[in-house]
Amino acid sequence: MRALVVGGGSWGTAFACVIARRGHRVVLACRDAALAHELERTRRNPHYLPGIELEPGVRVEPLDLRAQAPAADVVALAVPSSAVEAVASEVSLAPGAVCLSLAKGLAPRDARLLSDVIADAAALERARVAVLSGPNHAEEVGAGLPAASVVASASLETARRLQAELGGGGLRLYASSDVVGVQLCAAAKNVIALAAGASDGLGFGDNAKAALLTRGLAEMARLGEACGADARTYAGLAGMGDLVATCCSRHSRNRAAGELLAAGVPPAEVEARVGMTVEGLVTAPALAGLARAREVDMPLTRAVCSVLAGTALGDALAGLLARVQVDEFSVS
Amino acid sequence: MRALVVGGGSWGTAFACVIARRGHRVVLACRDAALAHELERTRRNPHYLPGIELEPGVRVEPLDLRAQAPAADVVALAVPSSAVEAVASEVSLAPGAVCLSLAKGLAPRDARLLSDVIADAAALERARVAVLSGPNHAEEVGAGLPAASVVASASLETARRLQAELGGGGLRLYASSDVVGVQLCAAAKNVIALAAGASDGLGFGDNAKAALLTRGLAEMARLGEACGADARTYAGLAGMGDLVATCCSRHSRNRAAGELLAAGVPPAEVEARVGMTVEGLVTAPALAGLARAREVDMPLTRAVCSVLAGTALGDALAGLLARVQVDEFSVS
Repeated sequence: MRALVVGGGSWGTAFACVIARRGHRVVLACRDAALAHELERTRRNPHYLPGIELEPGVRVEPLDLRAQAPAADVVALAVPSSAVEAVASEVSLAPGAVCLSLAKGLAPRDARLLSDVIADAAALERARVAVLSGPNHAEEVGAGLPAASVVASASLETARRLQAELGGGGLRLYASSDVVGVQLCAAAKNVIALAAGASDGLGFGDNAKAALLTRGLAEMARLGEACGADARTYAGLAGMGDLVATCCSRHSRNRAAGELLAAGVPPAEVEARVGMTVEGLVTAPALAGLARAREVDMPLTRAVCSVLAGTALGDALAGLLARVQVDEFSVS
Repeated sequence: MRALVVGGGSWGTAFACVIARRGHRVVLACRDAALAHELERTRRNPHYLPGIELEPGVRVEPLDLRAQAPAADVVALAVPSSAVEAVASEVSLAPGAVCLSLAKGLAPRDARLLSDVIADAAALERARVAVLSGPNHAEEVGAGLPAASVVASASLETARRLQAELGGGGLRLYASSDVVGVQLCAAAKNVIALAAGASDGLGFGDNAKAALLTRGLAEMARLGEACGADARTYAGLAGMGDLVATCCSRHSRNRAAGELLAAGVPPAEVEARVGMTVEGLVTAPALAGLARAREVDMPLTRAVCSVLAGTALGDALAGLLARVQVDEFSVS
């Protein structure tokens, strides 16, 4: 299979390597031409994925979608959510080829699913768009440590084909047709990770964080249900699995961003301090808007939004803790 | 409320302190009379809960159930699962009083639920027995850090009464009537924690551990369904919450025991090295037996059992990884 991976950040680089290990020929395309040449020459990506040598099957090129996309059987977009629409609008696929989103967020303007953004921008039927999400820290996948993930498409046949072609090496893939649930999980878990990082930063301990993850997944699942997602996705790798990996690992940028918020770093300065895209910062208000539109209560997401909008962390927290004790399966 | 907490280990000591902070008069009863006098004199329990000073409302006494139990409104058993039957058989409650199990395991001989063991051994109707479980590392609860947990009884009224009386301070309580699910979760998560610790010990990383937790919770939920548990319990604090806390925290003994197994410590020596009861070691074969009887596939639990029975960890792992990639919601 000929694969094009768009985006030379940490996940794009690691994903290119893991599928190259499966024997595919991979072009890794970087918008920054100088970076592309540097990566191709040194076989390393020290800023985004330090310590990893690129697989021999990966060729790094400057991004030139009009030339590169039609030559690929799968075009994987590993760019920030905010860039997906612009990139997808330049993608024209060969017959039978598929576009695969690796981004974890929502369209920042209107909270649309990225699979819908891609299908519209690239004029593709839904069966030719897929998404991949799961507990996949790039640092570990790049280093060849074992990982598992979900590949989902409105067409289960498309998902199974990508599973068979791309999975099975260092990255075990599970096929799903719940393209809604997988993407809502991928977006929402970054918001809960901001809260988990803040909890860590305040020294609240592992009990509080485990409770926060549990209630966080519950509010994620409520939104998913309202949007037509499969509830089982939330108990799976893209839901619980990715939430745990994101909230409990030192590798997570969103968790680290939450720690910075707890340390008093102003929200506007957090991303610069982390040094990479922190999707949760943009996703939080988009998700809260979606929740309001669907009339779903998401207290943790609301608390994160209010902190990002300037509320003191202690006040947001006091609001959460003032919620009364109830039966476990009451609405929220 | 007058509370008797039986067992001066880490959880018994921490639980006595957290309910004393709610204003209850608490007797903490230790089988080892010398230890009881030492705790009462020094107001500390340095072996099991270092760094914590006992709350003024806690009085430590040598265990004397025939005198102590009838004077309490709630008798909480914080003893190893293997000791629950013997202790419960000496409990006689005052009218209206309740017996609350804090143990996380199954009857070692026949894998019965501890709530059933208690009801039979103490000749109590089911409505007078409750269990408490959730993400509650004793070290953090003892130190006054925030935590949440589930209190369950066959009688939801009993659960709500305990919630109202005992919860709301450092330990937020949620009431449930799923006494089966809460106890099966409490038992099974220790087995998954052994596997998670082994994964850590082998250096597999956070992605692999997150996948392991996800698949672990899925097999726990399959057993629960076969035993009549409420599926929502598995997504709740006693299920996912406690699993995350147990598998991701440096405080967890079962996780630490798994790391020792990965380091090559013989299973028979692990508990002595940890220095406290490691429930998962006894629970694993009991749980596997229950799964066989109910015809439920629990591949992770089986792998743990085979390692405890002498199979090399690498071989058990190879067996797991050889499982084929499937749709995410296939049976196992």
